Amino acid sequence: MSKTTMKSTIYYGPRDVRVEERPIPEPQTPEDAVIRVVRTCVCGSDLWPYRSKDVNTPGTPIGHESIGVVTQVGADVTVAAVGDFVIVPFPISCGECAACKAGFESSCLNGGYFGGGAEGEGCQSEYLRVPHANGTIVNVSQALAAGDIPGAPASSKAFSDEMLADLLTLSDVMGTGYHAAVSAEVTSGYTAVVFGDGAVGLCGVLSAKLLGASRIIAMSRHENRAAIAREFGATDIVPERGDDAVARVMELTGAGADAVLECVGSAQSFDTALKVGRPGAVIGRVGLPHGVQLPAEATFYRNIGIKGGPAPVRTYARQRLLREVLSGNIHPGRVFTNTYTIDEVPQAYADMDARRVIKALVTVSEV
Amino acid sequence: MSKTTMKSTIYYGPRDVRVEERPIPEPQTPEDAVIRVVRTCVCGSDLWPYRSKDVNTPGTPIGHESIGVVTQVGADVTVAAVGDFVIVPFPISCGECAACKAGFESSCLNGGYFGGGAEGEGCQSEYLRVPHANGTIVNVSQALAAGDIPGAPASSKAFSDEMLADLLTLSDVMGTGYHAAVSAEVTSGYTAVVFGDGAVGLCGVLSAKLLGASRIIAMSRHENRAAIAREFGATDIVPERGDDAVARVMELTGAGADAVLECVGSAQSFDTALKVGRPGAVIGRVGLPHGVQLPAEATFYRNIGIKGGPAPVRTYARQRLLREVLSGNIHPGRVFTNTYTIDEVPQAYADMDARRVIKALVTVSEV
Repeated sequence: MSKTTMKSTIYYGPRDVRVEERPIPEPQTPEDAVIRVVRTCVCGSDLWPYRSKDVNTPGTPIGHESIGVVTQVGADVTVAAVGDFVIVPFPISCGECAACKAGFESSCLNGGYFGGGAEGEGCQSEYLRVPHANGTIVNVSQALAAGDIPGAPASSKAFSDEMLADLLTLSDVMGTGYHAAVSAEVTSGYTAVVFGDGAVGLCGVLSAKLLGASRIIAMSRHENRAAIAREFGATDIVPERGDDAVARVMELTGAGADAVLECVGSAQSFDTALKVGRPGAVIGRVGLPHGVQLPAEATFYRNIGIKGGPAPVRTYARQRLLREVLSGNIHPGRVFTNTYTIDEVPQAYADMDARRVIKALVTVSEV
Repeated sequence: MSKTTMKSTIYYGPRDVRVEERPIPEPQTPEDAVIRVVRTCVCGSDLWPYRSKDVNTPGTPIGHESIGVVTQVGADVTVAAVGDFVIVPFPISCGECAACKAGFESSCLNGGYFGGGAEGEGCQSEYLRVPHANGTIVNVSQALAAGDIPGAPASSKAFSDEMLADLLTLSDVMGTGYHAAVSAEVTSGYTAVVFGDGAVGLCGVLSAKLLGASRIIAMSRHENRAAIAREFGATDIVPERGDDAVARVMELTGAGADAVLECVGSAQSFDTALKVGRPGAVIGRVGLPHGVQLPAEATFYRNIGIKGGPAPVRTYARQRLLREVLSGNIHPGRVFTNTYTIDEVPQAYADMDARRVIKALVTVSEV
């Protein structure tokens, strides 16, 4: 008799996540797929429910980042077949609505997010149900089979641990950092400022570099994070905050940066971000806003733009980022500074919470 | 002895503008030019001080839109020579700072705006001093002399009244409507919604059309304005406001417009504008914000962007709009629905205030 239960991380309340046995999910509609999770991880945004009440529902599965192998597909699933290696982006997206068609599937009108409370849809688990699979999944096996990516492994069986870590970031943090850079309209020769030295901010630095920024100022006061920022392309590190940070960026840039990436979402960070762009600069924001005020007048006279939101990571993976990772051109997986088993997920949360690790990788199974 | 005084419109307070004799301005620095004004006009934004106190300083000249002929230049002025026909955009811009170099000269770090209170720098006058002439003026004579604009008049002496009206809009309203459309990222095949049926909103419709929008929904409840909107390219007219307007746009578009042009600046208009874009839409805003709230969270989850501010009309004139006007391809001057002499400027304000005219043209002198 085959296995019918799996290990799954369940949220119970502040500083209380537990790994429990739950039923392995099945497709519920012809559009669903199920995957066996190979790698998952803990996100900075998972720390919001971990630190405070009233964000997630107690007793529901958590986690929204995963890669894995398809084990079951509903009758209408065409995006992937059983055995394919896939990335599961954090947004569930129908692929058919105006948002999806415009490339903003992360604001899908019929979708949602993994780890949003539905049974079987938490990524920090051994198996995962993927609703709206055709609009949600990124098929890595298919990309490899096309055979046109220089330097790519022959098949998913040949993926190194490093490659798996790089691929996992495409389910959220690398795509989210890229969304910050795209939203901020970074282009060749630009000076970009990046707020946030967590995994997303660091991926923002890497993305600004990919989009051609010639100078990248990373706001960081942690040497281990600043080191990765430098490796990803940061040319300057600014540890100051608030008005001191504004003064320092003005000293470095003259009249402010051409583009500003806001990868925190706190009121202080956003307030500072609004002041360091030159006239006409756009703030690309991807940090969930917490108490943020957007001033209508001060931004108006300086022609400061604000764009961004939940990142359409599937669009970016398919457009560019999957090729960059498979060819070995970028290594966003460097943001993972420690590895855990599925049973150790509660410890991974505690280590993230205490800032002992930048981002916690969880090895769930092998390819 | 040559004339030493001129007629100039002076602001005294709510509903009190007077045409008085003032000294003809002279260059004050080697970078200044003086022009004899040929056409000027009254702007919707002039109605703010006309209607309320504490906006402009009583006793100072008003008006920020003009075209005319250069009569004096300081030693460092290279952009135009005495006798050249020029457009004077509403922003004074140095041409050298980071804002100007980035094409946002309307947020110049060393500039300001005409009609901002300095003696000799109000456009509703017979003569006008232009500070920072090299960074501010658009030289129409030079564009004509290049001889590469199909259908353009041979020289400024051949300009019709219609052409003069069209050119005058490039000093503000047409460039401002264009800024709304560019900021909203209108592109080929888009559905655009335009808030505001004043001169700027109408020019926003025309600009959305220029940028390739295939469907343009104009929010208008005035038949005379809706008629011009249709002439400029509007495909649908929506007279509703507030939630009814949102419902109507959703009915027309399914899930919201691809681009939203906000050409009013009031709290109600902006609030509605934020609700009618599809996920990922950008609000291009050019209306001076009055009591506007920008919600940080609601815009985040829908990936709604906000861009815009005072329009870099010089950049747009030089990039594209001057050619469009000189070739007769567009007629933004249609927004002028009545003409006045300089002595009649107080009546022009009263007529604008009472909405008896859309935009008031003032004939100051002949070319």
